[in-house]
Amino acid sequence: MLLKVKPLRLEAKKPIVILNKDDAWDLGVKPLDRVELRAGKKREIAIVNIAERFIKTGSIGLYSRVQDDMNAKAGQLLKVIPSEPPESLGFIRKRLAGNRLMPKEISQIIRDVVDERLSEIEITSFVISLYNHKMTMREAAALSRAMALTGETLDLGKKEIYDKHSVGGVPGDNTSILLVPIVAAAGLTIPKTSSRAITAPAGTADRMECLCPVELELEEIKQVVRKTNGCLVWGGAVDLAPADDAFIRIEYPLSIDPMLLPSVLSKKKAVGARYVVIDIPTGRGVKVKTAEEAEELANQFIELGKKLGMMISCASTLGEQPIGYAIGPALEAREALQSIDGTGPPDLIDKAVHLSSILFDFKGIKNSREKVLEILKSGKAEKKLREIIEAQGGDPKIKVADIQIGPKNVRIKSNTNGKVWWISNSAVIEVARAAGAPKDKGAGILFHKKIGDTVRKGDVLFEIFAEKAHKMNRALKIAKKSKFIEVGRRFRMLLEKIPARKEHEELFVLER
Amino acid sequence: MLLKVKPLRLEAKKPIVILNKDDAWDLGVKPLDRVELRAGKKREIAIVNIAERFIKTGSIGLYSRVQDDMNAKAGQLLKVIPSEPPESLGFIRKRLAGNRLMPKEISQIIRDVVDERLSEIEITSFVISLYNHKMTMREAAALSRAMALTGETLDLGKKEIYDKHSVGGVPGDNTSILLVPIVAAAGLTIPKTSSRAITAPAGTADRMECLCPVELELEEIKQVVRKTNGCLVWGGAVDLAPADDAFIRIEYPLSIDPMLLPSVLSKKKAVGARYVVIDIPTGRGVKVKTAEEAEELANQFIELGKKLGMMISCASTLGEQPIGYAIGPALEAREALQSIDGTGPPDLIDKAVHLSSILFDFKGIKNSREKVLEILKSGKAEKKLREIIEAQGGDPKIKVADIQIGPKNVRIKSNTNGKVWWISNSAVIEVARAAGAPKDKGAGILFHKKIGDTVRKGDVLFEIFAEKAHKMNRALKIAKKSKFIEVGRRFRMLLEKIPARKEHEELFVLER
Repeated sequence: MLLKVKPLRLEAKKPIVILNKDDAWDLGVKPLDRVELRAGKKREIAIVNIAERFIKTGSIGLYSRVQDDMNAKAGQLLKVIPSEPPESLGFIRKRLAGNRLMPKEISQIIRDVVDERLSEIEITSFVISLYNHKMTMREAAALSRAMALTGETLDLGKKEIYDKHSVGGVPGDNTSILLVPIVAAAGLTIPKTSSRAITAPAGTADRMECLCPVELELEEIKQVVRKTNGCLVWGGAVDLAPADDAFIRIEYPLSIDPMLLPSVLSKKKAVGARYVVIDIPTGRGVKVKTAEEAEELANQFIELGKKLGMMISCASTLGEQPIGYAIGPALEAREALQSIDGTGPPDLIDKAVHLSSILFDFKGIKNSREKVLEILKSGKAEKKLREIIEAQGGDPKIKVADIQIGPKNVRIKSNTNGKVWWISNSAVIEVARAAGAPKDKGAGILFHKKIGDTVRKGDVLFEIFAEKAHKMNRALKIAKKSKFIEVGRRFRMLLEKIPARKEHEELFVLER
Repeated sequence: MLLKVKPLRLEAKKPIVILNKDDAWDLGVKPLDRVELRAGKKREIAIVNIAERFIKTGSIGLYSRVQDDMNAKAGQLLKVIPSEPPESLGFIRKRLAGNRLMPKEISQIIRDVVDERLSEIEITSFVISLYNHKMTMREAAALSRAMALTGETLDLGKKEIYDKHSVGGVPGDNTSILLVPIVAAAGLTIPKTSSRAITAPAGTADRMECLCPVELELEEIKQVVRKTNGCLVWGGAVDLAPADDAFIRIEYPLSIDPMLLPSVLSKKKAVGARYVVIDIPTGRGVKVKTAEEAEELANQFIELGKKLGMMISCASTLGEQPIGYAIGPALEAREALQSIDGTGPPDLIDKAVHLSSILFDFKGIKNSREKVLEILKSGKAEKKLREIIEAQGGDPKIKVADIQIGPKNVRIKSNTNGKVWWISNSAVIEVARAAGAPKDKGAGILFHKKIGDTVRKGDVLFEIFAEKAHKMNRALKIAKKSKFIEVGRRFRMLLEKIPARKEHEELFVLER
């Protein structure tokens, strides 16, 4: 069927066209079916949407991507032919029915995800099939490889590449900004890509952006690493494992994460990592609650790593309260700069030292812990951090006072004597985000007391910083309402009362 | 945040708005999150899409539905606030994790599906959760009720409503066009709604449309039924159980159908049916392959019917070859008109008589089979069919010759002596659709021989009809290639050779 082009100037990643209902009927296609478009030698498979009035019979509406790909002009005629769904849809159906997939089937699916040839419904089905019938190691390895190979890769021309990843969940964790310079200062190569916060008050990329630019192109990253052995950049600016973005869009509203391991390791694979340390924060208030869970996850990472040609060590670390005292991009960047000489908060320093020494152990460096401490305290780590800042386009002489923090500031004091018994990660995250983090870089929380500290009535427990007055008000309201920090003379035993309700009876009546 | 309205004049069922990336970031919303729109007293929850260039900072693009709902003018300011996802998303997550739902949770999901408050990803998750963890009877009943109650309902003001449904899959099945007049002629009320073909060459609505209009409004349907006791209309023209349409859109590309029972019975419930006969075509080449499967499905229908206050009887019927001789809307309409006096193809008549007599049994009519035959042969059924045709706006004097069939016609002859051993339903469907059915009403197939018939070399096996020459060519090409009909002196024992291949070895090498 020949149809006249109507450019829609709409953006969508997928190749979408809009047909009139009658033309679609003539072609025998339904919404989300595919058609092949032809003009001269150009060909493209597009996904069909259908309109009754917006597109007239005889016309075809083209989204910008399709128009560009076909180089189509308004009013030009396109040949439109019904097209079979991609072969990978068959593999998705097979997986949905509970069957396992072969490596080449998985790579075909990932290829079609990246090329945007599968609809939202179809990708959702694939993600849920992995959630319902857990992946085998063989599938996970194939998935990791396929995800790495369908994106950009960083080729530094050497084999010994080191890397670090945190499973996340604990606020204030700026370990990477210490670890990367330590490791690079020892002469090891560590091209670290990090994420921005999605549901947290700050990601490493958000923190680092207070010190220097983090949105570098692949070629620029190479230069930084060649010059300094390391980098601290935003992974989102380069297209490593792009299939992951499509999956995250689906996992996020459903609160499921069946691809955790391939998602992490495909990105490590894409930068050529050979030796990787994985931090698994463990405890109440983070994703991994118990030592047993941490061990199981660690063993899975190690096994999958082996299949991918990576040596992996994991560290289960205490995740029950924030790391350090600062929460929010600028406050954490300040804390990192203050800590890089080894004088920072003991928990942050301890964590950075342990994780760095695991990477040193891979290299066979003796007395790795002492070596790490020496690099920190001698100023070599700070020198390296400033080199990296400069190489990424920042000011190597940056001082703590140069990092702007929110002008609005409220100090919260204790109304009792006692000790800090616990701090709630989730409440800390909620308050810091309400104050404006990570979007407002200067917003966040600065703790004065942490678990185990002795508190006297009137002592400052923490400060909230914000850039805007209404966000400060919102943060204060939430801080007051939520169980944020517990100070008292002793542990309170009652957590919550759950009174009897008669509701259940009524529910069963509904059934009749 | 206040944003300026930019009308997009795009149609979508869901309330979609497009925000600029930076505004979305400021609001803290991601693609597919929800925002609440406010203008004066008007409020609406909309689903967020994000653009980088198409929508500028400070503007909000509105799809037509949202613009209409908010009565918004171009350039007007709307207040935009981040909004929580609907409560039903929590229920979907719960179901996805394998938990069962309470009736009120199911009705909330269905309500939000109908109101278009759930995204494609979220509805897909719900459908797949029902596929992965089969519904309990209690859930199925709640789902059927919720689906019926969220749509239009036909209230005829009486309790004894009869109905018929076929699980489908067998081509040429125009039983309903015989059954409805038989049942109505006996004084029973049968407001039959039917579907159009989706993947078949003709649905009952497509066939009936060759005799009279079938797209009636609810009020018109009532009048037809009051006048004649019956009707044969297209269900899609009235909004019975609209949630089903949303589910079918998702089930179709995935080839799954976890909601078969609630989907059927919600529509029966919506027309107030009390006594229902369900036809389960059984055998090679239809959905239900064995007697055991048919029995299990029948028992599920019967049990679910009980929970919904319906008496259901099921009939497992032979589905291995097409019913009657005609395939395609016009050819089947002709066959129905020729058969309504009881002189049609024996399989069609036999099937219509059996299913009708099951409905008579509900009423307690004695010697129901003889009574049905009497209604057919006395001409009462034909009289009733013509009454229904007239009431729906057609010509009650319509003759077979008035029904146009495709002018292109090719007869396929046997090149051998023998018997017809089998006819492939799927090949018949493919050829008839290639010839143009159901879109070209006059296209289709007319059989001269069916299974068991003796054939001499040169006898016509079947004819293909088409309205357009190129469709005829396509149909002929497919008919030649496919295993359509098998004629021979004896059964051929070899179905297919499956030669050894070395491919498996290679596949396992991939794993290293």
